Amino acid sequence: MAVVKDREETLRSFYEDVRSKALEPLWVISANVNTVEPTREVQPWIWRWRDVRPRMIQAGELMGVGHEGADRRVLTMKNPSNTRELGTSRTLVSAVQMVYPGEEAPTHRHTMAALRFIIEGEGAKTIVNGEPLTMEPGDFLLTPSWTWHGHIHQGAGPMLWLDVLDVPFVRGLDLGFYEEYSDPPRVQPADRPIDDNLRRYGAGSLLPPPKAELSTPYSPLFSYKWRQGRETLARLAGDDDSPYDGTAVTYTNPFTGGPVMPTINASLHLLRPGQSGNAHRHTSTTIYYVAEGRGSSILEGKRFDWEFGDTFVVPNWCWHEHTAVDGDAVLFAADDSPMLKAVDLLREQSFPDNDGHQVVTGTCGV
Amino acid sequence: MAVVKDREETLRSFYEDVRSKALEPLWVISANVNTVEPTREVQPWIWRWRDVRPRMIQAGELMGVGHEGADRRVLTMKNPSNTRELGTSRTLVSAVQMVYPGEEAPTHRHTMAALRFIIEGEGAKTIVNGEPLTMEPGDFLLTPSWTWHGHIHQGAGPMLWLDVLDVPFVRGLDLGFYEEYSDPPRVQPADRPIDDNLRRYGAGSLLPPPKAELSTPYSPLFSYKWRQGRETLARLAGDDDSPYDGTAVTYTNPFTGGPVMPTINASLHLLRPGQSGNAHRHTSTTIYYVAEGRGSSILEGKRFDWEFGDTFVVPNWCWHEHTAVDGDAVLFAADDSPMLKAVDLLREQSFPDNDGHQVVTGTCGV
Amino acid sequence: MAVVKDREETLRSFYEDVRSKALEPLWVISANVNTVEPTREVQPWIWRWRDVRPRMIQAGELMGVGHEGADRRVLTMKNPSNTRELGTSRTLVSAVQMVYPGEEAPTHRHTMAALRFIIEGEGAKTIVNGEPLTMEPGDFLLTPSWTWHGHIHQGAGPMLWLDVLDVPFVRGLDLGFYEEYSDPPRVQPADRPIDDNLRRYGAGSLLPPPKAELSTPYSPLFSYKWRQGRETLARLAGDDDSPYDGTAVTYTNPFTGGPVMPTINASLHLLRPGQSGNAHRHTSTTIYYVAEGRGSSILEGKRFDWEFGDTFVVPNWCWHEHTAVDGDAVLFAADDSPMLKAVDLLREQSFPDNDGHQVVTGTCGV
Amino acid sequence: MAVVKDREETLRSFYEDVRSKALEPLWVISANVNTVEPTREVQPWIWRWRDVRPRMIQAGELMGVGHEGADRRVLTMKNPSNTRELGTSRTLVSAVQMVYPGEEAPTHRHTMAALRFIIEGEGAKTIVNGEPLTMEPGDFLLTPSWTWHGHIHQGAGPMLWLDVLDVPFVRGLDLGFYEEYSDPPRVQPADRPIDDNLRRYGAGSLLPPPKAELSTPYSPLFSYKWRQGRETLARLAGDDDSPYDGTAVTYTNPFTGGPVMPTINASLHLLRPGQSGNAHRHTSTTIYYVAEGRGSSILEGKRFDWEFGDTFVVPNWCWHEHTAVDGDAVLFAADDSPMLKAVDLLREQSFPDNDGHQVVTGTCGV
Repeated sequence: MAVVKDREETLRSFYEDVRSKALEPLWVISANVNTVEPTREVQPWIWRWRDVRPRMIQAGELMGVGHEGADRRVLTMKNPSNTRELGTSRTLVSAVQMVYPGEEAPTHRHTMAALRFIIEGEGAKTIVNGEPLTMEPGDFLLTPSWTWHGHIHQGAGPMLWLDVLDVPFVRGLDLGFYEEYSDPPRVQPADRPIDDNLRRYGAGSLLPPPKAELSTPYSPLFSYKWRQGRETLARLAGDDDSPYDGTAVTYTNPFTGGPVMPTINASLHLLRPGQSGNAHRHTSTTIYYVAEGRGSSILEGKRFDWEFGDTFVVPNWCWHEHTAVDGDAVLFAADDSPMLKAVDLLREQSFPDNDGHQVVTGTCGV
Repeated sequence: MAVVKDREETLRSFYEDVRSKALEPLWVISANVNTVEPTREVQPWIWRWRDVRPRMIQAGELMGVGHEGADRRVLTMKNPSNTRELGTSRTLVSAVQMVYPGEEAPTHRHTMAALRFIIEGEGAKTIVNGEPLTMEPGDFLLTPSWTWHGHIHQGAGPMLWLDVLDVPFVRGLDLGFYEEYSDPPRVQPADRPIDDNLRRYGAGSLLPPPKAELSTPYSPLFSYKWRQGRETLARLAGDDDSPYDGTAVTYTNPFTGGPVMPTINASLHLLRPGQSGNAHRHTSTTIYYVAEGRGSSILEGKRFDWEFGDTFVVPNWCWHEHTAVDGDAVLFAADDSPMLKAVDLLREQSFPDNDGHQVVTGTCGV
Repeated sequence: MAVVKDREETLRSFYEDVRSKALEPLWVISANVNTVEPTREVQPWIWRWRDVRPRMIQAGELMGVGHEGADRRVLTMKNPSNTRELGTSRTLVSAVQMVYPGEEAPTHRHTMAALRFIIEGEGAKTIVNGEPLTMEPGDFLLTPSWTWHGHIHQGAGPMLWLDVLDVPFVRGLDLGFYEEYSDPPRVQPADRPIDDNLRRYGAGSLLPPPKAELSTPYSPLFSYKWRQGRETLARLAGDDDSPYDGTAVTYTNPFTGGPVMPTINASLHLLRPGQSGNAHRHTSTTIYYVAEGRGSSILEGKRFDWEFGDTFVVPNWCWHEHTAVDGDAVLFAADDSPMLKAVDLLREQSFPDNDGHQVVTGTCGV
Repeated sequence: MAVVKDREETLRSFYEDVRSKALEPLWVISANVNTVEPTREVQPWIWRWRDVRPRMIQAGELMGVGHEGADRRVLTMKNPSNTRELGTSRTLVSAVQMVYPGEEAPTHRHTMAALRFIIEGEGAKTIVNGEPLTMEPGDFLLTPSWTWHGHIHQGAGPMLWLDVLDVPFVRGLDLGFYEEYSDPPRVQPADRPIDDNLRRYGAGSLLPPPKAELSTPYSPLFSYKWRQGRETLARLAGDDDSPYDGTAVTYTNPFTGGPVMPTINASLHLLRPGQSGNAHRHTSTTIYYVAEGRGSSILEGKRFDWEFGDTFVVPNWCWHEHTAVDGDAVLFAADDSPMLKAVDLLREQSFPDNDGHQVVTGTCGV
């Protein structure tokens, strides 16, 4: 007994000594470090449109945009299970942004990459590197890392959209750079035609000769219209379906066939009435936004019902399966697979038991 | 003098001796080998539709297709300046093919890559690897190296199209492999839906998840419709123009952004009325087909007038410039730049004098 | 005044309400998020060999390895400025490991990638995927992500080496997977010749035909001997020097010319007596280990003197410049540039003022 | 009968008519074009050193180099089966070159790529882009497309080496460009240290930071010494052997791991006494030079004995197998696989019958 005590005392004193020299014995922490599977802090969560929209409207009453207001009127989705500064998952953050007619969200740029998926409204434009991009419900827009971007609104009624950024990833690495376009902050004037790159590169596999400016690590095609995506889904429905996610199409960089940005991939998924995918999990995180219809997902054994406007997150290595109810459902998905693939950390696993379906153990109470 | 004679005699006898051992002194042939610029045998040439079409019709009367006829009813464009076996240029051959209703051009495959550009007719289909591709005027189709392909025609009236193949290149390397689909030769049955890959991959930058079968060195998108190409040209006209070739769009592999096949690149060019490009030359060869309108080209100082249906070849390192007359002109172009780029032999030069325009020294008499 | 109070009250109540729905207003946190330059928590630090080595020896007395001991006898370098779980920087962790003759560190594998740089001793081997790698002072070894690795020691005297891993990066993303080779833990037997891949792929630009097993995202060459590296530095000294880091050579994957692993790059740097590089900074983090000689570095204006065996960290976006004293100094460097390049976050900046040298404002007191 | 005659007459007259319009019916030539396997004109051949060397010496008596002599004293190996202008195969030409002390082969550059393998002598240097490369027996040197290169000889005795170029390929495409360094022709002065790139990039997987000048499509390492290659073969002998070609090592570009030039690949092959490889064939052509030892090869069923200094060609799609006699044999090989791979025309086939060995039907009488 005395020996044990002595040893404990000796170790304690040793630990104290080495820590004073900024050393930490690995064997003290290795049980935490060497886990068979990831110890994931972030849990699945859902943000319901019926909760978010009225609060966004309220935010519109409380906070202006631009001159004497906020740079951006944004409510970020802070996952309650995430103890870090901010983040819907460990790598991504989703948010809802609203602009009113006449407002201007001043132009800035940052190393964090962003994408937008339009929820409602008309008449606003995002100006990316001098090119005004139209914004209509269901449109998908890019503002890649270090591109100038501001928002203006010359239409009627509020304009709302979903933002997804890689802020938790970039800031988790302490690599956030940020620059305002001008002092005082204002919106960069449009010096290119509206939807210019869409006009140039939007015809798919018919491309004008590449320009020097296009050797970018992201898609020079900054916007993808809803109609084209929805029609493509309808056309492919049924015979190209994945075992997991219904009919899927990925937004790609027309000059490479690769993902739209080096950190974030984006895709659309069509689930037909009653179509029920198998469960799987992967090391990448996906943020889903319900662009159309109703359905439910089983995330790590718990059921999450969803409908138009809802956003939910499937964190890394989380079992998930989706089903639509009543009619077609369309999910927009943003995931971090490009960054994981780049460092060879992308893994995927099919749910092995029970014909590929999880046993449901509860329902999300949110 | 005797010394000179002696030396000549000695050299002659030496040459005879080394040649008997399969050796050839380089200094005897080096003047031929080491030319400052390529000594190009192949000259520009034009095949006029008014000459070709009636002869194709005549061929239809003289030669059947399939059962007891030819495998293909094709008139190849043999450049008169080319002393080799066959070829419109040193690397490419263009041809016109015709199929009558009820005829079947049996399925085969070969290492030579082919493309088609539809001239007139309706109702025929090319079946590539079991997928029937519709053929309408202005459509562009691929039958890449070693893909099964046959043609059927269930419509009315003759169906005519332009073929471009890399036969002179592949056979120049003695690398032609060929295989018939069945014995006796017949057409591979369609086991996939009509225009299936167009449906899947034709939406441009919205792609279904890549399948294993798609890791091909050529575009899995086997057909590109005229309407989309023409509309894209119209949309881009004016502000994206090249200094040489008007408004240009390249047909690309949607999964890579690269050329449709590893040996041949294809593109469309719009020249607006009176638009006159500068002259340039490059080590790649281009075969031009007039898909719309009228115009003329100055090729190595000589003027070639052209109109709908004509085909002309601009061989490697040949100065060329184009102009439209009366209205819009659209040129379809097939070139061998991918193979040259792959071996680092692609060079380009702008015409340096006279504001970029050649002095015209004559007119093509054909 | 009442109005202000009312507004504050209204906002406070609004914030409370939205937070109850897992929403956080961006404008509340944006000042933290949108910083002109990275807000870097991790500061430069140095671990002196005169502090580390005796404590490592002490650890040897207190803690066994393998059977009834720790899996690894490792002291990790925990940067005092880092508030996270562990880490020498935000992405990398360095450590010192020691094995005594007769000890066996059992085989395991994990998604975290590791490298070793041998400090002292002889006779130990690291067995990577069944291949025993010799370990001599100055040797550089790889145990890439998910490769089996264990250590044995059949020589005399303690064996000490530096470990560098991407644990903070991988665990920061919650992507740590770990597996033991057997139960109970033991060392994987050697089923390949000693230094087999070094024998196969170590001759540089003379490679045997690639095997299927070599299409790995990391170098199949698992070890690089000190002598070759040191000789190469001596040979290149003087005329290939970088303006910053003396004569530099990068360890590369012979099959790609790229970095040894997708997350970590490694290199050697020779500073000749009195040679003083200019200051620069980059978004990548570097861990330096002093393999030979003495010198000092100015890190963010503060002077750090170093000598053989010391390890110091230059975190991301930290100004740094190095100089040798007395004689040649050789620094081994491990950095995270591959992961940053992959996601387009790599930036570099030369120190603009004062002829490229920082003003020294203090000395590291450690 | 009359009908047949009529038809023949009609066809003949039709053919005449279409040919007058530069058209050729495909069905007339398709039997030639559509061959199941390549119709290969070029046959295997061997050039014996006992034949070549004395004639080279004779050439030295008859023809000077440089001032008032030939630019190059070269005897090219003209395959007797090849009806084209020049060429050992359809794509490659090998030759022997000799320089005497004091001679200077003036500097030029051309689009044709060249390599050298040193046969005998010492003291000569090839100056490539201003860098003098030492030449010792067994060394392998590059003079890639469009690099300046000249030869000087400051040693004693004749210097002889093997040249391999892609002249038949490049000139077959009419893409030969050529430029003399100066007028009158002379050798470019050395403005870089001897074997500079070997010193910089010769240490294999330890590379200095890449320079802009190194983004070349060919290896910036212009020379590979015999000793390193021979030692590598000895080290790998036995356990890495290919089923066909003994122990093989490929010369690679250290910055990519790929072939040394975009058109030509080079390798060394060790055959141990009595070691007999299986037969195979591929669409690429290989020129073999016997760098050491004696042996024989069965090429398309015929036996070719060879010894030091002999050169033989295995054309595309030609069955071949090799064996050494008496002792180790080392073959240097240059092949055109990179150009074929680039255009997806590379195929390989193992000999299917007779345990992988051809039946020998004769012996080469040369």
